[in-house]
Amino acid sequence: MTTITTMTTTDVRFPTSRELDGSDAMNPDPDYSAAYVVLQADDGSRGDGFVFTIGRGNEVEVAALAALEAHVVGRSLDGPDDLAALSHSMVGDSQLRWLGPEKGVMHMAIGAVVNAAWDLVSRRAGLPLWQYVASLTPEQLVDQVDFRYLTDALDRDQALEILRRAEPGRAERTAALLRDGYPAYTTSPGWLGYDDAKVERLSRQAVADGFAQIKLKVGGDLADDVRRLGIARAAVGPDIRVAVDANQRWGVDEAVQWMEALAPYDPYWIEEPTSPDDVLGHAAIRAKVAPIKVATGEHVQNRVVFKQLLQAGAIDVLQLDAARVGGVNENLAILLLAARFGVPVCPHAGGVGLCELVQHLSMVDLVAVSGQTQDRVIEYVDHLHEHFEDPTVIEHGRYVAPTAPGFSARMKQESLDAYRFPDGSAWA
Amino acid sequence: MTTITTMTTTDVRFPTSRELDGSDAMNPDPDYSAAYVVLQADDGSRGDGFVFTIGRGNEVEVAALAALEAHVVGRSLDGPDDLAALSHSMVGDSQLRWLGPEKGVMHMAIGAVVNAAWDLVSRRAGLPLWQYVASLTPEQLVDQVDFRYLTDALDRDQALEILRRAEPGRAERTAALLRDGYPAYTTSPGWLGYDDAKVERLSRQAVADGFAQIKLKVGGDLADDVRRLGIARAAVGPDIRVAVDANQRWGVDEAVQWMEALAPYDPYWIEEPTSPDDVLGHAAIRAKVAPIKVATGEHVQNRVVFKQLLQAGAIDVLQLDAARVGGVNENLAILLLAARFGVPVCPHAGGVGLCELVQHLSMVDLVAVSGQTQDRVIEYVDHLHEHFEDPTVIEHGRYVAPTAPGFSARMKQESLDAYRFPDGSAWA
Repeated sequence: MTTITTMTTTDVRFPTSRELDGSDAMNPDPDYSAAYVVLQADDGSRGDGFVFTIGRGNEVEVAALAALEAHVVGRSLDGPDDLAALSHSMVGDSQLRWLGPEKGVMHMAIGAVVNAAWDLVSRRAGLPLWQYVASLTPEQLVDQVDFRYLTDALDRDQALEILRRAEPGRAERTAALLRDGYPAYTTSPGWLGYDDAKVERLSRQAVADGFAQIKLKVGGDLADDVRRLGIARAAVGPDIRVAVDANQRWGVDEAVQWMEALAPYDPYWIEEPTSPDDVLGHAAIRAKVAPIKVATGEHVQNRVVFKQLLQAGAIDVLQLDAARVGGVNENLAILLLAARFGVPVCPHAGGVGLCELVQHLSMVDLVAVSGQTQDRVIEYVDHLHEHFEDPTVIEHGRYVAPTAPGFSARMKQESLDAYRFPDGSAWA
Repeated sequence: MTTITTMTTTDVRFPTSRELDGSDAMNPDPDYSAAYVVLQADDGSRGDGFVFTIGRGNEVEVAALAALEAHVVGRSLDGPDDLAALSHSMVGDSQLRWLGPEKGVMHMAIGAVVNAAWDLVSRRAGLPLWQYVASLTPEQLVDQVDFRYLTDALDRDQALEILRRAEPGRAERTAALLRDGYPAYTTSPGWLGYDDAKVERLSRQAVADGFAQIKLKVGGDLADDVRRLGIARAAVGPDIRVAVDANQRWGVDEAVQWMEALAPYDPYWIEEPTSPDDVLGHAAIRAKVAPIKVATGEHVQNRVVFKQLLQAGAIDVLQLDAARVGGVNENLAILLLAARFGVPVCPHAGGVGLCELVQHLSMVDLVAVSGQTQDRVIEYVDHLHEHFEDPTVIEHGRYVAPTAPGFSARMKQESLDAYRFPDGSAWA
């Protein structure tokens, strides 16, 4: 029996605002950051996880991680039952629950600890997280899910049916993943702080690199957006998908008007047109901008809001995030909900380490849940991978399936030291 | 010109779990707590505010308050324009926004600072908060509101129309409030930890004290709930409203089944039948339990979710909370939304100081927004008032309108000292 003996936290921040990488209509100057957590067990095994933030407030997440220590230290962590119990214990803490429930600072901290525990367990099993998860039985997988508030859309039996339907082809799809990887799209050409020449150059480069989809940030100024989208469309030609992303900038009417102006350039989806809390707003926008697709998810707080986005027919594309909700357990619920409604999952990534984590979840979806990649792509952004021990690898516009054990979550010790805030050398 | 010179925070906790006061189906052992903030200005004026929590994690709210200091210290705070600017500055912080947006730990901390600023300004004006707010013009009031994400349901012009319609009767309704107070209901008889005899005794006492409505906690065990509701109904007779509160315990189907079993005892409303995030779930429940009313709000994270609850016809009763959303500014938006949809506001209170704060908001609603008290009541719980300098006063089942300047938010210094966690004398 393995027992967690220590939990340590680090406030890590990268000064990305100096280069305008990551700039968009709502986030002009992010400093990509991580509230980082390490679990150590008495058998020498270790698991890493983190909350991604964009700078100020990272210390609040570190405080939230510390508030979870009593749920973690001293707990046994041997296999799937323990993972479910850990998640249940933290989400169900009756006092901490008041701070959400299941949303924002506290819920993201729970997600980081849950992810660290899955990192530890899959490392010890000698499997990359996606293969470890896909090695569990349908029964073990549904036992990871909290069905409270879901049963009007998805109950345990329906979830089991989805998982059992996907079971026969698991080995074949695993082999295909290891051979071919998983489709990616790139956001690198489209940050709002980039000038027209850079947008054009990076758009062409993306196609040359093998990507079949790119994404541009919009929502700052309409004339600028029309011009930039025109430049990108001309650079990539008619056959490459060009998505646009407003980062929650608009209300319903504004979103519809803006997309009418961009429609001549055939945008593939409009991402985060409005508040991530506005299920009915997304549904109203979707009804009016079709056939342009509506996508959201990186700021969707939990499975209850995803459930409603699906029930209301509010989205064409579900963009789960590895570090926003309650970790692998809640993301399994979200994958199952998406499969139940037949909506493709195209995860949000970028930031610090989000590509590293989220590739595993899409691969779980392919192997064990939806069983397909049709219209499914994982976001890719080429920032900060050098700080990770097992960085993502992109070849010909596809994520290469990770083979190293764990969740690809571990940051290099020298990066943790150098970017520790405020006393690391990068901040000196 | 007045400038804020310091912001100080205190972690205050009351060991309420020792008596099972406040126990319900989701919160078996709360220690009512406050992450407390004091703003001091260079003219000697002071404003107090707090986040209410139920124990563990109060220190995370204290960290969130500290993260706001740069928005507060050095800022001028002379009148309504400065209050709007302060709210806008904190809610719009592009890096802190990632931690929500506008929900959970960070948003509640913003609400506490906003409320402290309103306390300061209304104290300096020599008016209780409700009278200060009601002294502002309709234009000054709408300028407090962030209409982003609201305009599909309520825009600035529509809000102005509501406020202008209520303007002629302000003086008369103020006089009536000062004379008659505002209707209250009491939750004191119904905590889940109380035995049958205590439920019966306190139910009778509530009627004797002049309350026309009481509330019982439900959701633990169905047979217990049927018995307890029967006892309470017999104790109060047929003419007193008896509301029940499930504290988010159920999914949709479970809520409907449970309420069918309780219906013979004529419950007036079912409060928090399911997740506060589940707009569509509340709408489904409401359609099936009518004529029993559906109420929610104490955990509703922001105006965007309230907007949808109203748009979807999901609630009969809107229960705003003074310390959950972004303070007075966002609660003005919520009062305006409720008035636009014609849904009565019956605020959540209890906890630490929530009665003290929220009475002002209902009085603002009466004087300056909806202009009426029809089917409107403020929750009352008789805990912890002794720790406040200007505690609520209840007479004959009604809140007596506060006349002391400010938001009634200031805790006595000896209470702050004694209950400071973990080093106050109460925790020694």
